Amino acid sequence: MNYQNLFDKAIDRLHAEGRYRVFIDILRNKGAYPNARCLAGHNGPKPITVWCSNDYLGMGQHPKVVAAMEEALHDVGAGSGGTRNIGGNTHYHIELEAELADLHGKGGALLFTSGYVSNDATLSTLAKVLPGCIIYSDELNHASMIAGIRNAGCEKRVWRHNDLAHLEELLAADDEDAPKLIAFESVYSMDGDVAPIAAICDLADKYNALTYCDEVHAVGMYGARGGGITERDGVADRVTIIEGTLGKAFGVMGGYIAADRRIVDVIRSYAPGFIFTTSLSPVLVAGVLASVKHLKASSEERDAQQAHAAMLKTLMADAGLPVMHSETHIVPLMVGDPIKAKKISDILLAEYGVYVQPINYPTVPRGTERLRFTPGPFHDEAMMRELTAALAEIWDRMELRAAQAA
Amino acid sequence: MNYQNLFDKAIDRLHAEGRYRVFIDILRNKGAYPNARCLAGHNGPKPITVWCSNDYLGMGQHPKVVAAMEEALHDVGAGSGGTRNIGGNTHYHIELEAELADLHGKGGALLFTSGYVSNDATLSTLAKVLPGCIIYSDELNHASMIAGIRNAGCEKRVWRHNDLAHLEELLAADDEDAPKLIAFESVYSMDGDVAPIAAICDLADKYNALTYCDEVHAVGMYGARGGGITERDGVADRVTIIEGTLGKAFGVMGGYIAADRRIVDVIRSYAPGFIFTTSLSPVLVAGVLASVKHLKASSEERDAQQAHAAMLKTLMADAGLPVMHSETHIVPLMVGDPIKAKKISDILLAEYGVYVQPINYPTVPRGTERLRFTPGPFHDEAMMRELTAALAEIWDRMELRAAQAA
Repeated sequence: MNYQNLFDKAIDRLHAEGRYRVFIDILRNKGAYPNARCLAGHNGPKPITVWCSNDYLGMGQHPKVVAAMEEALHDVGAGSGGTRNIGGNTHYHIELEAELADLHGKGGALLFTSGYVSNDATLSTLAKVLPGCIIYSDELNHASMIAGIRNAGCEKRVWRHNDLAHLEELLAADDEDAPKLIAFESVYSMDGDVAPIAAICDLADKYNALTYCDEVHAVGMYGARGGGITERDGVADRVTIIEGTLGKAFGVMGGYIAADRRIVDVIRSYAPGFIFTTSLSPVLVAGVLASVKHLKASSEERDAQQAHAAMLKTLMADAGLPVMHSETHIVPLMVGDPIKAKKISDILLAEYGVYVQPINYPTVPRGTERLRFTPGPFHDEAMMRELTAALAEIWDRMELRAAQAA
Repeated sequence: MNYQNLFDKAIDRLHAEGRYRVFIDILRNKGAYPNARCLAGHNGPKPITVWCSNDYLGMGQHPKVVAAMEEALHDVGAGSGGTRNIGGNTHYHIELEAELADLHGKGGALLFTSGYVSNDATLSTLAKVLPGCIIYSDELNHASMIAGIRNAGCEKRVWRHNDLAHLEELLAADDEDAPKLIAFESVYSMDGDVAPIAAICDLADKYNALTYCDEVHAVGMYGARGGGITERDGVADRVTIIEGTLGKAFGVMGGYIAADRRIVDVIRSYAPGFIFTTSLSPVLVAGVLASVKHLKASSEERDAQQAHAAMLKTLMADAGLPVMHSETHIVPLMVGDPIKAKKISDILLAEYGVYVQPINYPTVPRGTERLRFTPGPFHDEAMMRELTAALAEIWDRMELRAAQAA
């Protein structure tokens, strides 16, 4: 038994496939987002423009958010000091849960340390409280939902992405008395497409199933108050559990679910991933509270994001770049090869000061490696024109047009 | 299929067993810790003394920590904006990992969003990278380790708590060529006892096993630089992976592992719970960096904590209270009944302004419900004498002495 050999082999496999990940060393410039500075491998900090952040609306830099965090830091200190049950339940947590319940029109909400944990803890616990439960999972669901479903240890059916006929076929084939849960996302983050939520809820009604909708790439960004696609489509009351993140459009960190009070109480009382962990720092919670409140009242950031995403897609398409169809704020540019995707990203950073991370397996399927741009309210037209010109130059230099046309 | 009935029953079970959890609504007073204020159920905020925080050394209030967080907040903003691979790898993260690797004398370290996630992600991933791996788990290991081992899907052997003979018996019974991992904690948080780490490492050497030591209740508090029990006992270099938290003695939030560079790289590259989650807010990371650096150089907080814990144990024992034997800073007071434990806690809060949470199942085994006190450097002698007098009065009022003597 040579452990070192096994560890070496695990890493060698990644190098061989061209998907060994190198983390870029950056610091963002507060107040000048999407500007940042890159620290490693340069002759001193190099100014860069961030094009792949999930701080979609720049709320991580918003004066209200920063002021709220500073106030909490000076009022109560750095950390919560305990689990929610043992010393770590601050008034900030209670207030934020009420605010998030209101955002989604639900009876209650529950905070987790991350969106990943909220999916893993909630899905695995729900299935245990509902003996014999079957979970119907969209094939493109996020890794954290897959983890939660696997950890639930229950029966699982995977339905083809956004394919209602396939979902119905699977629902109809199972025992009508079995507890059922349909799990899906509203916005799929790597392709930018949207689930047919109302139609999924129709099927849930017909087959007496609960619904679980991951809105992490939608909360703050869709709906009149930022309640996500469920708000935009007027179906929030039909979805049993809405799950969201505090680390993307809300700009800070953490995750949550919103549902009726009793379901929230069940997860609060039974989920190990909620019970046995130090609660979110009150500093973070205070920042999120300011962010959620702001985005409930202001649509300025959402409108600018949508306008900029539309503009960037048009600019890229006009330049003959393989921008993928997307109904949302996400702008994916297909490369289809992990080594080329990494090379394009490296050139962009080294020569153009553009930071966009290559997206490779396991985040997307092999052969669909891509660059994923997330233009926000602070990416202006000049930045977008520069970016498009840089990409067109690199596409020519690497002779990608011919290869992709072939 | 009536979902509501099932959810109702799940909650009713908790009420029937007297272990339905009510979260207390508090805010700590920065600069005056362990003083805090309790907001719900009182006529305005009520001043309380916190006796059950895991901010063991009060570092969550330390001026250096608060200043570092404020500086980071104004330099880079609230959140990281992405996963470590996609936009969320800041220079703070890189610096803190280097600092933690140095703290434990290891080649590398890796940050997670919580200690829970670090255990779950690391243990489940390790077993997958080592096909046929068998994990040997101390029976009192924390819920997050149990989750990681279960999620690994590998063979598991549970050894009786701190029982080396039983551990060896299990190791000897398995195929000598199978990959093996011995998983244990250094300080067990509910009883306050300590693992025989050197002897466990002897067995690991003899049976060619890796070792995984959870030091969450020890880092910052033991060893000349706060490297934990592994530092105090001079065995850090013999433990393969040391896991710690940033949310207890370091006063902020988050978790980590420290190990040789290759193992860290494997977990970084393969663990879904690390890859697919927004990284720790740089504000938190900056605070932890200040905290770890301070506690590497200063033993003042550690010494005061140990002195106060010893004093509180003596005061309680002298007052005839059933304080449990503990070798560490943790002071457990046995009650043995969930309803009585809750009642004592309620009286302490209502009549004495003392906040100590009752600890019930599943955090401790049924029948061993207790109160758990965590005196720190800022709990002075007068506070401890008041606390002991209050407990003695309540013990008499509830006629617990006679019951416990019986």
